[in-house]
Amino acid sequence: MKLKTLSAALLATAAVSVSGVSMAYDEIISVRNEPVQPIQPAKVDDPQLVKLGAMLFFDPRLSKSGFISCNSCHNLSRGGSDNLKTSIGDKWQEGPINSPTVLNSSLNVAQFWDGRAADLKEQAGGPIANPGEMAFTHELAVEMLQSVPGYTVEFRKAFGTDKIDIDMVTDAIAAFEETLVTPHSKFDKWLAGDDDALTPTELRGYELFKTSGCVACHNGAALGGNSFQKMGLVEPYHTTAEAEGRSAVTGKDADRFNFKVPTLRNVEMTIRTSTTVAPRHWLKLLTSWAACSWASVSRLTRTLPLWPS
Amino acid sequence: MKLKTLSAALLATAAVSVSGVSMAYDEIISVRNEPVQPIQPAKVDDPQLVKLGAMLFFDPRLSKSGFISCNSCHNLSRGGSDNLKTSIGDKWQEGPINSPTVLNSSLNVAQFWDGRAADLKEQAGGPIANPGEMAFTHELAVEMLQSVPGYTVEFRKAFGTDKIDIDMVTDAIAAFEETLVTPHSKFDKWLAGDDDALTPTELRGYELFKTSGCVACHNGAALGGNSFQKMGLVEPYHTTAEAEGRSAVTGKDADRFNFKVPTLRNVEMTIRTSTTVAPRHWLKLLTSWAACSWASVSRLTRTLPLWPS
Repeated sequence: MKLKTLSAALLATAAVSVSGVSMAYDEIISVRNEPVQPIQPAKVDDPQLVKLGAMLFFDPRLSKSGFISCNSCHNLSRGGSDNLKTSIGDKWQEGPINSPTVLNSSLNVAQFWDGRAADLKEQAGGPIANPGEMAFTHELAVEMLQSVPGYTVEFRKAFGTDKIDIDMVTDAIAAFEETLVTPHSKFDKWLAGDDDALTPTELRGYELFKTSGCVACHNGAALGGNSFQKMGLVEPYHTTAEAEGRSAVTGKDADRFNFKVPTLRNVEMTIRTSTTVAPRHWLKLLTSWAACSWASVSRLTRTLPLWPS
Repeated sequence: MKLKTLSAALLATAAVSVSGVSMAYDEIISVRNEPVQPIQPAKVDDPQLVKLGAMLFFDPRLSKSGFISCNSCHNLSRGGSDNLKTSIGDKWQEGPINSPTVLNSSLNVAQFWDGRAADLKEQAGGPIANPGEMAFTHELAVEMLQSVPGYTVEFRKAFGTDKIDIDMVTDAIAAFEETLVTPHSKFDKWLAGDDDALTPTELRGYELFKTSGCVACHNGAALGGNSFQKMGLVEPYHTTAEAEGRSAVTGKDADRFNFKVPTLRNVEMTIRTSTTVAPRHWLKLLTSWAACSWASVSRLTRTLPLWPS
């Protein structure tokens, strides 16, 4: 069966966990010496934990209103983001920055644009208790879950106890999110040795991507997500947005407007988000290229999306 | 594989459409002469149309904000509703009435609580253009869809043309919603002849359900949804809610507070919604029963939910 859409990919992932059979794991080896590596398939060690995490990820009862779930802003039918300028939270509040994609987020050096969470588990608790996002508390979230018999059964299966705590909740959500990787793109197939996977135009795009310097920041399996870089690298960065970047975490003024580099994986589905952060960055880089060159890079990015071909 | 959760049931449904194979259809015949009939499995004649409908159902781009999809208020992980007192719309507006479940909604005599849409196709266009709900227009929704290459491909497959119109959109959403039925409950198995499917307590609950008059309104395959009844049947109905019921459609004052009878299928997942409409109705009926009788009825409703056992 060809998986043509993200929802299909998700369905397959979740189906695995529901049936309780761990997904066969085949590591994808790159035969090329490139600054970009293939995305590896998800390794599901604990399908029950992943199943529970999926239930929680889609459950709006983790918000004060009962209306907002993880999936509201990290929408799996929209490339793992909401594609909005800034995300919408409790009572229609607008956040200070856009929502990063959850896809391949396990490959990130840290979570949130400013890296204030070390990993997915630490991230998962944030939005639940953020007054501008899901506006709940960890205590009330746990109390709600504890009151739902269906959940106590699933927590017991996953943790051997039905006395729920927030650590279990974030463990499960993180385990589910770790399955949200998107291997097997055309580009991955090329890296794995299939010379015909990319067209000559796409290969020219990749060469240009490397020679023009994109790859300096957008490298690794996710083509990004593995470093922080300064907004305003090419020209001064002016913004009225509240988000100040890495300095909010380190307290150092030098880290102001230092943000995590976005992944370029599935960029065709998350581009609205990306351009919100850095339109000038794109424009500056792109205007120095001839239209045909841009077409090549654009063609390259189409080799990265979710659906295998 | 046992499907224990709604998401799992949904996954199975959607997986069928994605793989392009029509689901095997086995009619369930009742061997009993009862006022309640088994829910029939979905008959999928056009998997491509169902697949397209699923894409649309989950797509928040059909709303002005890009944040609200059909699934926001008819959440398939929450029994097909949002379980809120009234649903949340564009800019956090609160509607005049709660959101009915989409599950088994193809069995309804008409759509919306006041029956103002004849069928699911007619219903599907309503929320998209309602300024208090998704707050979009049909023209802009179609324009958005037309701008997404992935959608034009799917519309071409479903309709033989990629010139999209709103009729195609509502056709597809309705086709998907028609698959959202929940057959194979314990109660259905009992109707089909499995004497051991219900416990003696559950059977006592069903007898009580019939002898105490519940079944007068809550009958048919969906145990409701097939007639309009007057709120205030048992005692005067006082409300500050705006929804006036059937009179909004017929213009007749006699139809004021005439609402569609809710289905009791999966009532354990949608009870918060139901009690919002008619707490007094429940209370009045229930207080006349001994606690043990209520336990029996409650046990019965547990035989109706989504998951087959």
